[in-house]
Amino acid sequence: MSEESIIYVGNKPVMNYVLAVVTQMNNGAEEVTIKARGRAISRAVDVAEIVRNRFVPDIDVDNIDICTEEIVGNDGLTTNVSTIEINLKKDS
Amino acid sequence: MSEESIIYVGNKPVMNYVLAVVTQMNNGAEEVTIKARGRAISRAVDVAEIVRNRFVPDIDVDNIDICTEEIVGNDGLTTNVSTIEINLKKDS
Repeated sequence: MSEESIIYVGNKPVMNYVLAVVTQMNNGAEEVTIKARGRAISRAVDVAEIVRNRFVPDIDVDNIDICTEEIVGNDGLTTNVSTIEINLKKDS
Repeated sequence: MSEESIIYVGNKPVMNYVLAVVTQMNNGAEEVTIKARGRAISRAVDVAEIVRNRFVPDIDVDNIDICTEEIVGNDGLTTNVSTIEINLKKDS
């Protein structure tokens, strides 16, 4: 069984992603990484905070990384988009 | 002279905040903290990434914190809002 799971946060309601993270935790994952880019970054932070404060008290933010990705559009132009990775880990 | 400066990111264009951070750095600040909450969180990450990649190469993300704040509205109801603090530091 994988010890680390990744949840990609997009444009769905926040609680969909919260449920996904909580499910991974209940299935035995020790770590969950929440990834998002662009405007979904705010939602990713909401997901981490809601999981931590309301659903899984014995979890903590282990690390947060921000980064830039180049996206090539259909017209061949590249645009930069910011990304975030929030690593949640069970207290040991 | 203060060694740490705080820039609050809101709803203005990203480059306004980028300019504010770069100005602080050029005035001798060793550290700049970028703070935002709610939807402005994505913009705060953009500001940090643009400063780092385009304007101040000798700067690095030192630490990122996420948190939840309670906001009391005019109707007396409290709502939770996520916040982010991105600490940028000059390479030593």
